[in-house]
Amino acid sequence: MSAEEDKRLTHLDAEGKADMVDVGAKADTERVAVATGCVRMAPETLQAILAGNAKKGDVIGVARVAGIMAAKRTSDLIPLCHPLALTKVSVDIEPDEALPGLRIRALAKLTGKTGVEMEALTAVSVTCLTIYDMAKALDKDMVIGEIRLEEKLGGKSGHWKRGERD
Amino acid sequence: MSAEEDKRLTHLDAEGKADMVDVGAKADTERVAVATGCVRMAPETLQAILAGNAKKGDVIGVARVAGIMAAKRTSDLIPLCHPLALTKVSVDIEPDEALPGLRIRALAKLTGKTGVEMEALTAVSVTCLTIYDMAKALDKDMVIGEIRLEEKLGGKSGHWKRGERD
Amino acid sequence: MSAEEDKRLTHLDAEGKADMVDVGAKADTERVAVATGCVRMAPETLQAILAGNAKKGDVIGVARVAGIMAAKRTSDLIPLCHPLALTKVSVDIEPDEALPGLRIRALAKLTGKTGVEMEALTAVSVTCLTIYDMAKALDKDMVIGEIRLEEKLGGKSGHWKRGERD
Amino acid sequence: MSAEEDKRLTHLDAEGKADMVDVGAKADTERVAVATGCVRMAPETLQAILAGNAKKGDVIGVARVAGIMAAKRTSDLIPLCHPLALTKVSVDIEPDEALPGLRIRALAKLTGKTGVEMEALTAVSVTCLTIYDMAKALDKDMVIGEIRLEEKLGGKSGHWKRGERD
Amino acid sequence: MSAEEDKRLTHLDAEGKADMVDVGAKADTERVAVATGCVRMAPETLQAILAGNAKKGDVIGVARVAGIMAAKRTSDLIPLCHPLALTKVSVDIEPDEALPGLRIRALAKLTGKTGVEMEALTAVSVTCLTIYDMAKALDKDMVIGEIRLEEKLGGKSGHWKRGERD
Amino acid sequence: MSAEEDKRLTHLDAEGKADMVDVGAKADTERVAVATGCVRMAPETLQAILAGNAKKGDVIGVARVAGIMAAKRTSDLIPLCHPLALTKVSVDIEPDEALPGLRIRALAKLTGKTGVEMEALTAVSVTCLTIYDMAKALDKDMVIGEIRLEEKLGGKSGHWKRGERD
Repeated sequence: MSAEEDKRLTHLDAEGKADMVDVGAKADTERVAVATGCVRMAPETLQAILAGNAKKGDVIGVARVAGIMAAKRTSDLIPLCHPLALTKVSVDIEPDEALPGLRIRALAKLTGKTGVEMEALTAVSVTCLTIYDMAKALDKDMVIGEIRLEEKLGGKSGHWKRGERD
Repeated sequence: MSAEEDKRLTHLDAEGKADMVDVGAKADTERVAVATGCVRMAPETLQAILAGNAKKGDVIGVARVAGIMAAKRTSDLIPLCHPLALTKVSVDIEPDEALPGLRIRALAKLTGKTGVEMEALTAVSVTCLTIYDMAKALDKDMVIGEIRLEEKLGGKSGHWKRGERD
Repeated sequence: MSAEEDKRLTHLDAEGKADMVDVGAKADTERVAVATGCVRMAPETLQAILAGNAKKGDVIGVARVAGIMAAKRTSDLIPLCHPLALTKVSVDIEPDEALPGLRIRALAKLTGKTGVEMEALTAVSVTCLTIYDMAKALDKDMVIGEIRLEEKLGGKSGHWKRGERD
Repeated sequence: MSAEEDKRLTHLDAEGKADMVDVGAKADTERVAVATGCVRMAPETLQAILAGNAKKGDVIGVARVAGIMAAKRTSDLIPLCHPLALTKVSVDIEPDEALPGLRIRALAKLTGKTGVEMEALTAVSVTCLTIYDMAKALDKDMVIGEIRLEEKLGGKSGHWKRGERD
Repeated sequence: MSAEEDKRLTHLDAEGKADMVDVGAKADTERVAVATGCVRMAPETLQAILAGNAKKGDVIGVARVAGIMAAKRTSDLIPLCHPLALTKVSVDIEPDEALPGLRIRALAKLTGKTGVEMEALTAVSVTCLTIYDMAKALDKDMVIGEIRLEEKLGGKSGHWKRGERD
Repeated sequence: MSAEEDKRLTHLDAEGKADMVDVGAKADTERVAVATGCVRMAPETLQAILAGNAKKGDVIGVARVAGIMAAKRTSDLIPLCHPLALTKVSVDIEPDEALPGLRIRALAKLTGKTGVEMEALTAVSVTCLTIYDMAKALDKDMVIGEIRLEEKLGGKSGHWKRGERD
């Protein structure tokens, strides 16, 4: 963030009102985004989910479906997001006993004019909300956290990876 | 979480498959839920949002609208949530320079048969996602975090507050 | 509009930010709202619609279905509208050769805590948009106009009718 | 509208039933549409909106967001509209004390096979409905009017502007 | 179906146009509906689904989630259905090697003014469509069939069961 | 279905969990799909629909609109379907006195990276559900059946027609 011009918020136009920015002149390139997040919970809650899961697969299975479906509805939820014809969405959920809890990772992909960061982040968020919903009878203290973009490919800005310089 | 029977995941039925649980026999009582979350960002990003906001109010204004609208779509997003006729939703967004970033607090209310935790949590999540979307040109490193239920009133479980015993 | 307190915009709270107002304490009463509107067009366009309609009923038939379906999605479209379980929606479309064009009238009904004006107005608006869409190849100059509330029954404000004193 | 063949309603097929017309063979060109409309109200209502607006920006801010989001849902609302990947939507709201009321102008843009008139008109309509919703406690007599296409660029019909010959 | 008056199609009003019928005066009673359907397929397709399922539970698991979510969207899909606050939805999927294929059974429940047949039938239909989608790479010849109401409880018509006299 | 590798269920990845498959590398070709289905009913029900229809066109007209709109929402309903910009959808409904009942045929078309079978099948399913809804006061015994893909054009697999060898 060096130059002053980079500091403009892109969704605010010259007069400062919010608008869906014009991406019509952007090139159609392959765009990929990866986002992650987690749900922290009591160790017993994690065990209950994994035990249920070992037998039936349902908590984790339902949450994955919810995350994938949510990615497709991103432009319905986020006011200034463009509607996009996603070519791929995947969601992975892994237990992490050190957390303790579940770690979520989503990938979104598109050949198009604009990035898919919001689709990946929305998939992660709704996956986490669904995990909370399905386990909240056990543990209302669960905390959803660390939702962030990890990596982004394609478009003018090229390859961006968390922790490397912009 | 004392009794074994409390440890069943409510959305898994006797055979372990996911279902929307039957709330038909529950009483219509007033239900309130409050959830919070935050978006951590570089201090310059917060300044840019607040400066834009001081003049036009847009980033924070748009994110609040998105959060309120999302609360109404909770049962469309979370597979096993019941459709609810919310009677009130509010979203507050406050800057916190110590974070640095924005803190979000949502309240959902209903006179009905089931709690509104998921509606409050969904409002917080989509508010955070919208803030990320509107400021991501400035700062892709922002992190959405600490999304959690703070308080819950009404229904069989009465008054629940984070940090107090269940 | 005499008293100063009546002049507050109900969706702006004490601090001035937009919120879905709390209707939880309102009584469940029968609420009805009637709204009207029109689409002005060239006389030839009206004749074409009526001729097509006389044979197949389609333009007017499709526009009525669109209006009824839109009424059910009002709270998805209008940010601060409450989700409502409408008990009836009807849409009427009549030709008016003096206009020339089509006149639309929609009625919405609910037993609930809040009025259904927005549902009736949304039904009229989307009916008009659909008429425009289906006839625009003939006549891009059509104008949608005079969308307004005609009558409102139920709730604290009782019976309101356009042209009579509030 | 000279030739007989131009008088067919495009959404009615040879047998007269409604269908989504085939745009598969149309070229991908840049398409732009501009639509306008207004909300007429009592002068005191306009003053209240502007006063609230001067301080908080909310009525106009919320209505703009609603209009932009609605443009993205056009094909969900209008039965025979094609789903489109809009590249830009903007909504402007200006006070007009001579009206008195607010004037709305929306622009929609796409590189694609079909025009975006309906998206611009839908944005205007839902912006108007939201203004009505947020100010209706003050003034139920407000009238939404003059919703019309102003200009259209791209596609086979080239540049169309209201008031100029087709 | 004895009396002539019973033969009117309820969604057509006196003049014959479609409307959402008025259920405002109906009593709030508990309503239950059960519907069934099936997907016929090659024996190898069934084996592949069950083998995949034995390991991961996904085809059947995803289809169940899709059916439950679709039940909640019934009034969005079926033009004259009332929006309903369902209190329970469940979907069961069982293999039937004699078919060969999968048998689907859905139950919907509500305390309200109108029946939930369409919600149960919609859940069955979308469950079947999802099974088709997930297995179509193996077998495009699959046929969805026998979608029907099995039983209905509550409301003026009391208990209805397929095969028993109306 | 000869080779073992053809027997993998495409939506299950290497580890067996469901994902939206990556179609980014597929070519944009014209894709067409045709699906059919039927609603079986008592002869008196068919007569009532046709009589109503002869006068007003409503049952069949409303069901066709519902089917077309549903095709556009396929990716919202079927978890692993890609969002597609359909270029054409049509739905035909014909009476068949030998059935007795109504036969439905839907066609979906797209220039894109993935097939439109699910869109055609969804259009047929929702058309059938709407017919059931509009006539259920007359005849709860109606059965929706024989929903199947008839023909598919475009994409790697070329031309597929029911009854001909894969």
